[in-house]
Amino acid sequence: MKAVLILNAGSSSLKFALYPLDGELASHPAISGQVEGIGATPELTTRTADGHKSSEPVLTSSDQLEQQHRDSLAHLFRWLTANNPDLDIVAAGHRVVHGGERYSAPVELTPQVLAELERFVPLAPLHQPHNLRAVHAVAGLMPGIRQIGCFDTAFHRTQPVLAQTYALPRAMTAAGIKRYGFHGLSYDYVARALPGVVGERAHGAVVICHLGNGSSACALREGRSVASTMGFTAVEGLMMGTRTGSLDPGVMLYLMEQKGMDARALTKLLYKESGLLGVSGISHDMRTLLASDAPEAREAVDLYCYRIARELGSLAAAAGGLDVLVFTGGIGEHAAQVRQKVAEQSAWLGVRIDLAANAADASRIDGEESRVAVAVVPTNEELMIARYTVERLQLL
Amino acid sequence: MKAVLILNAGSSSLKFALYPLDGELASHPAISGQVEGIGATPELTTRTADGHKSSEPVLTSSDQLEQQHRDSLAHLFRWLTANNPDLDIVAAGHRVVHGGERYSAPVELTPQVLAELERFVPLAPLHQPHNLRAVHAVAGLMPGIRQIGCFDTAFHRTQPVLAQTYALPRAMTAAGIKRYGFHGLSYDYVARALPGVVGERAHGAVVICHLGNGSSACALREGRSVASTMGFTAVEGLMMGTRTGSLDPGVMLYLMEQKGMDARALTKLLYKESGLLGVSGISHDMRTLLASDAPEAREAVDLYCYRIARELGSLAAAAGGLDVLVFTGGIGEHAAQVRQKVAEQSAWLGVRIDLAANAADASRIDGEESRVAVAVVPTNEELMIARYTVERLQLL
Repeated sequence: MKAVLILNAGSSSLKFALYPLDGELASHPAISGQVEGIGATPELTTRTADGHKSSEPVLTSSDQLEQQHRDSLAHLFRWLTANNPDLDIVAAGHRVVHGGERYSAPVELTPQVLAELERFVPLAPLHQPHNLRAVHAVAGLMPGIRQIGCFDTAFHRTQPVLAQTYALPRAMTAAGIKRYGFHGLSYDYVARALPGVVGERAHGAVVICHLGNGSSACALREGRSVASTMGFTAVEGLMMGTRTGSLDPGVMLYLMEQKGMDARALTKLLYKESGLLGVSGISHDMRTLLASDAPEAREAVDLYCYRIARELGSLAAAAGGLDVLVFTGGIGEHAAQVRQKVAEQSAWLGVRIDLAANAADASRIDGEESRVAVAVVPTNEELMIARYTVERLQLL
Repeated sequence: MKAVLILNAGSSSLKFALYPLDGELASHPAISGQVEGIGATPELTTRTADGHKSSEPVLTSSDQLEQQHRDSLAHLFRWLTANNPDLDIVAAGHRVVHGGERYSAPVELTPQVLAELERFVPLAPLHQPHNLRAVHAVAGLMPGIRQIGCFDTAFHRTQPVLAQTYALPRAMTAAGIKRYGFHGLSYDYVARALPGVVGERAHGAVVICHLGNGSSACALREGRSVASTMGFTAVEGLMMGTRTGSLDPGVMLYLMEQKGMDARALTKLLYKESGLLGVSGISHDMRTLLASDAPEAREAVDLYCYRIARELGSLAAAAGGLDVLVFTGGIGEHAAQVRQKVAEQSAWLGVRIDLAANAADASRIDGEESRVAVAVVPTNEELMIARYTVERLQLL
């Protein structure tokens, strides 16, 4: 079986998907899964296209994070080969969080490119090192294999300069402190799927809400990003599972000066202790909160939706109106109550939803009287990476 | 002459206005002016209603900031008495930046209230101490005089809880880290004047842009604040003369971790080196930038306007639409090019302006085909304080 291997390496996890390449790129992976618990007791779980699941501990002789990452990848390769004797991995595609200002499209990961991408580690210290380590590990395991990097930032490089600029001294902007935007592979996938769902309107003023444990939204015109809620980092913008989203920088100064918090404590607060978890005090998981009777759970959900509705107005300003509103991501695809609340608060934009269609997670959920097409489009970042890998390497 | 004395004490300045009270409150001060340069070489400048101006150095024997503040106020009192032998100051009204969560209206500054307001000093360390020091100084100079405190935050206490809440852990919200909003005296004044300019529509969905060296915007329904761009501090929201406005908190973490910046350096960056000044590299003054041919000046102005247009969308979401758009503050009242750019980028909301009316700073500048009433309303925070002082003390 000829296939491309798609890898998404995080700090403690390694997700993979193997897409067969038989005359055309399969739209579903033959096998997918992840290693979780890297740095502690890593475990590989897999599922095949026909629904067979398995899990097993990863063999590692080290308790070092970096070595466990390498061991996890080696274990995965052995597992794939053992379970698919005819497997022929012809290329690897990687999710790489940061492509800086330079990369506005996927790129082959040559040594020169990898050296440049190392320079962006300070811009995404929580993700970029793990992404790049996986690229080096694959090269070590399969010498000569061609690898493609697909960036979360690339889709947003079409934004006007004003949308990418903070009101900081211009030397800082020139040094790269600007709004990059993230979730670009998801927006890219959804934008390409959108004409099939809403027709010509997909080329108008569109806002896509990617709502998951990380949440952001993107304004598009003609299918291209014109603004996004995530900026220099993935903590800006919408409220998230454990992240604050946008926050008055004066709050940071207050916490430093009055509460003695340092960068480490602030990072923990903003990334791990806030958002749905912090406001509810109950859970970061939208499903848990929606199922809860606690008023604190309702407050967290209400704030989450309110913040989306506010940003929707701001993004409509960037897009010059609103023709299409799209929900994607785990929450966007499955939390009908969230979609309903956002839609109700966006009635002023002409948004109306059909409650039955919404409850059914239908692909079109706008009501008859809606001036705005409202869609639910499942995202698929892995397939987007697979497509780019095949396209860039002209594998078909 | 019976009069109320209005004071606005800053870190290095003391602004005053003396409003005659003769059967009714005068709409213009008999005398106004300021002491500037407190902490260095303070100088009193005054102007009378008939246009007479004067200036003189303040007599001070100290180079201590606090003593110079007291000396400045004492000098002002001597000057007022010497130049107005029949002057009878019946009350003093103060601008006090922070009223916390508690004060949703002006209040008489009793010792108990002052003690409570001291507790808000950490929330506004750059302004609150100076505001309160002036209250104590007046009490020392005129024992028994009644004083009223009018808060920049009070007008926003009508906002829904969601508009006041950050997605921080709920214990932090309960401890007061929430969105207070500022420029409330300006919004209050403009909101009261608005029916005279746009009629019934003043009670609908309104956004007021207070554009000055400090800039913010406020969404109103039924004349009450429902959301504002400034939050916990006056650095959040719109781009300003030297302030960033909203900024990804991740930028702060990056500057701390990668550039070693501490709270003091970040405060200087965010409050003093950014905004129009930082982006242009030329000036914090909109007049200078609008008169400049430099592309950097144009970039700064464009970013300033773009950010207003984006926030206008967000505030329209909070207000449930947009019936009226109001410009006020030094830039809002006088910079026709800024109003024009904001209006052009807000065409999607139905905003159209009459270019001739706009160029003339007319009170109504919407074009015939505009779905939104667009107004220019000069603000008057001092008069608002004077009215509240008279009202609270039932001086008429």
